Amino acid sequence: MHRTNTCGELNLNDLGKEVILAGWVQKSRDLGGMTFIDVRDRYGITQLVFNMDEDKDLCAQAREISREYVIKVTGKVVERSNKNPKIPTGEIELKVSALEVLNAAKLPPFLIEDETDGGDDLRMKYRYLDLRRAPLRNNMILRHKMAQEIRKYLDNQNFLEVETPVLIKSTPEGARDFVVPSRMNPGEFYALPQSPQTFKQLLMVSGFDRYFQIVKCFRDEDLRADRQPEFTQIDCEMAFIEQEDILNLFEGLTTHLFKNVKGIEIGDFPRMSYADAMRLYGSDKPDTRFGMQFVELNELAKGKGFPVFDGAELVVGINAKGCAHYTRKQLDELTDFIKRPQVGATGMVYCRFNADGTLKSSVDKFYNEEDLKAWSAAFNGEPGDLFLILSGNADKVRKQLNELRLEMGNRLGLRDKNKFAPLWVIDFPLLEWDEESGRYHAMHHPFTSPKPEDISLLDTNPGEVRANAYDLVINGTEIGGGSIRIHDRTLQSLMFKHLGFSKDEAQKQFGFLLDAFEYGAPPHGGIAFGFDRLVSIFSGLDSIRDVIAFPKNNSGRDVMIDSPSTIADNQMKELHIKTTV
Amino acid sequence: MHRTNTCGELNLNDLGKEVILAGWVQKSRDLGGMTFIDVRDRYGITQLVFNMDEDKDLCAQAREISREYVIKVTGKVVERSNKNPKIPTGEIELKVSALEVLNAAKLPPFLIEDETDGGDDLRMKYRYLDLRRAPLRNNMILRHKMAQEIRKYLDNQNFLEVETPVLIKSTPEGARDFVVPSRMNPGEFYALPQSPQTFKQLLMVSGFDRYFQIVKCFRDEDLRADRQPEFTQIDCEMAFIEQEDILNLFEGLTTHLFKNVKGIEIGDFPRMSYADAMRLYGSDKPDTRFGMQFVELNELAKGKGFPVFDGAELVVGINAKGCAHYTRKQLDELTDFIKRPQVGATGMVYCRFNADGTLKSSVDKFYNEEDLKAWSAAFNGEPGDLFLILSGNADKVRKQLNELRLEMGNRLGLRDKNKFAPLWVIDFPLLEWDEESGRYHAMHHPFTSPKPEDISLLDTNPGEVRANAYDLVINGTEIGGGSIRIHDRTLQSLMFKHLGFSKDEAQKQFGFLLDAFEYGAPPHGGIAFGFDRLVSIFSGLDSIRDVIAFPKNNSGRDVMIDSPSTIADNQMKELHIKTTV
Repeated sequence: MHRTNTCGELNLNDLGKEVILAGWVQKSRDLGGMTFIDVRDRYGITQLVFNMDEDKDLCAQAREISREYVIKVTGKVVERSNKNPKIPTGEIELKVSALEVLNAAKLPPFLIEDETDGGDDLRMKYRYLDLRRAPLRNNMILRHKMAQEIRKYLDNQNFLEVETPVLIKSTPEGARDFVVPSRMNPGEFYALPQSPQTFKQLLMVSGFDRYFQIVKCFRDEDLRADRQPEFTQIDCEMAFIEQEDILNLFEGLTTHLFKNVKGIEIGDFPRMSYADAMRLYGSDKPDTRFGMQFVELNELAKGKGFPVFDGAELVVGINAKGCAHYTRKQLDELTDFIKRPQVGATGMVYCRFNADGTLKSSVDKFYNEEDLKAWSAAFNGEPGDLFLILSGNADKVRKQLNELRLEMGNRLGLRDKNKFAPLWVIDFPLLEWDEESGRYHAMHHPFTSPKPEDISLLDTNPGEVRANAYDLVINGTEIGGGSIRIHDRTLQSLMFKHLGFSKDEAQKQFGFLLDAFEYGAPPHGGIAFGFDRLVSIFSGLDSIRDVIAFPKNNSGRDVMIDSPSTIADNQMKELHIKTTV
Repeated sequence: MHRTNTCGELNLNDLGKEVILAGWVQKSRDLGGMTFIDVRDRYGITQLVFNMDEDKDLCAQAREISREYVIKVTGKVVERSNKNPKIPTGEIELKVSALEVLNAAKLPPFLIEDETDGGDDLRMKYRYLDLRRAPLRNNMILRHKMAQEIRKYLDNQNFLEVETPVLIKSTPEGARDFVVPSRMNPGEFYALPQSPQTFKQLLMVSGFDRYFQIVKCFRDEDLRADRQPEFTQIDCEMAFIEQEDILNLFEGLTTHLFKNVKGIEIGDFPRMSYADAMRLYGSDKPDTRFGMQFVELNELAKGKGFPVFDGAELVVGINAKGCAHYTRKQLDELTDFIKRPQVGATGMVYCRFNADGTLKSSVDKFYNEEDLKAWSAAFNGEPGDLFLILSGNADKVRKQLNELRLEMGNRLGLRDKNKFAPLWVIDFPLLEWDEESGRYHAMHHPFTSPKPEDISLLDTNPGEVRANAYDLVINGTEIGGGSIRIHDRTLQSLMFKHLGFSKDEAQKQFGFLLDAFEYGAPPHGGIAFGFDRLVSIFSGLDSIRDVIAFPKNNSGRDVMIDSPSTIADNQMKELHIKTTV
């Protein structure tokens, strides 16, 4: 038998028991004639004790073993003199009578401790060692718990988990598809799903009523720090429902997770239209852990002779509460920040509401005290506040001010990782203009239904058509989104037409769905949550990489297994392909 | 609101309630001035009633709608005069006051009923309609329940579900890998996993202790009726355990599923060595719902001048209880059966134990009554029995007799789908000889550990080395298998050598695992169950196809979405590949 107990469970109740433990050597130290070894497994750490006086050979053997050795020990549970209240086993230790090395270990390339000295690359290469560290292990345990709770909740709500295929068909947005050559069907390819969208809609047509799946999806796009080529989605679809039902149910799911996994009562989820989110935060995923909403100043700031504002489509600012004391240097830093290419503003106007009640701006030449007082009133200003104002093209300046707002949130410590602010953003536009292709694209996807009252705008003013689409945002991160779908062949065909599909293309790509809509498709809608993202929010991490057991790097490589890699010529021959490099 | 209730929940307790239902028209019939419509959803069927005398327009409207229309009705729950005790809603009906067609339906290409008139091809093309039929829907519900119960059980046993990557590395057995060209790494490919084997072992090296995953795996092989290119595995791995622990734990899981999903107490799982299974059943996955074990007759049947037996390596038979009355025609059918190319025997000897106590064989020329009595004793024969005997090369004749035994089991109705006979087959050979490549292959996989006492045979008699490997068999179907793994670099390298890997190849392909074994790998082992297969056993189906929502056909095609398909030239260009067809 390898063990009678784990390394996390023995305590004073077990005094005198003869037990067997197995695990990894966390550390060892010799103190006079004694040797102490901390042995670790997933469940905890137990202190082993060896005594030179009592058993010289055994103690000498213990002194031979190093960190990360896998050992098995037999011994008796005894009370510890020097108790450690921080760990559950801290009141006992094991007086070892037999020690067996199950496997020796070379010196690890980095410290297996909460704070490690390993760089990213080394930790990725030896991911199996990095995963031994408690923070990573805890992320995986958290992920497991969340998945279990999600399934429990959805099962209770009558959802059925149905597995949809991984080998599917490439779509017109195929540039982002991973494809798989078919050996049995020469010259043809499967594609890996970017989402199970059409399959879950077909399940609604089949009458499954409530579907979910925690499922891998794939997207071959250039990877930013926080994207992975394969990612996991909590994918859901419901029939005979309206937007309100979906928002309530997934608000319920999220609330359940916060409560049961983190012990947090998160309260109601506010709702905000896309238009308001853009107007008040310059973002469709505002971080509402803090206020600092945008204040538009066109009325108050234009027409006073300041050419920058006069020529701008929009003058808009934020009130950085209590920042009137900012030094020239600090203000210059902010100006540098907004001028970074990623933000792209050309300049910033500021106005201090000094503690003494006076107002002082960087554009005093153009605005008198009355003007500034009016600004201040618009900002709900108080002594000590600092107003930061940008101007320019409305869409662009909102995005720039969003960056500045988030930066100020960081500087003021308003983005607390232990605080959670959920928000439903609703009424998204159906279409968005794509400069590159010179046509409209679906903002969510081609299956999203337009609001009935806006359908008439499709021909005249497509950009104004609102969709029955919604996103869940937590702390400025998009957790998921969904929509009420089209369930009618005529409307779906109209959508394809507006998205630039010819009738033939639409039939070739999505004929099965259009056909399905003719055999009795129920009204339906759904939502998908990014599971990696949700776990990272719960674990207080900025990146999803450390909530994934074996992630890929920014070049899409798994450096541990050295993948992707070349394959044999005869393998390619069997698959009817050649490489062109 | 689309509905207040589902179509499966209303009963006499709801009399008088005003409700809204939505669903599909299962059927409708007009009886005099009345029209009855059965409306269906996932949860059940409710009868709607319309009365020409009371509301002519509404009843006329009801008469316009056809099967599979999606409708929404408002009405009052009333008691039914003509009750249907077979369904939960059979005592009530809904007296409809308003009817709305949510979506019309064309006539489906086949009947949406338990027994359909649709052929396989048509049902695959319109899978979303086939899935409306109760038998398929129930399979999916069963699958969901089983997955939920599996997770619950394993979670209770401290297993963590950890997701392993889908985009991994092609292996030397790569001919069966699906590959994915990498856009970002020109000329290189990912492979889809045939199993998460190495990752789950790395998780043990990481100290995860108990891992599981219900996970899609992929194998590109020519598809028999009962294989799918993508299939689902219940994949598990444990550290610090021995074979006995794994068998007990997964016996527990299987027992839990039978009990909680099917309400069956399945009892203890017998164990049988691979050698015994081959000797007694000619198969490593014997159907033990019935006996009819093999009886070897070399001692009794050879040396009596019958050249066929005398020249055979093995003479072996079965006792078909109570079949002495078989006619010449029935015996000829059996002879034809064993001569089919799939079975490949050349002839069969039979011996009747007649009701009158006499013995009569097809080889009376060579064997006298004493001889036949000795045979009968070996078969534990009783009056009325029929002995069927094959002979030839031992391996081949066992396989042939296995087929004959199963055929007799079918003919005698001994393979009852409602009876479940589990069996652990243990002590598998480590290696098996592959004629084609002229070398030994791993019978399970290269990571399986040999029995310590057999390691010395590796050089002298590799075929005799037994592995710490085991399969779970239910009703003659392999449900899963696993092994205690190698956790030592030296032994793993030795195995690779015996499997024909050069040192360089082994390092290139599995260097990460060999390296990992040097940093403190615990003893570990695991198992994987075929989930599709397990569900099909539970649902009493011969094929896995109908427990998969969207399966592929025997050419690996999804005929519903028409995949695989060609992709655009510029897409191939981006992926640095060309087709060669």
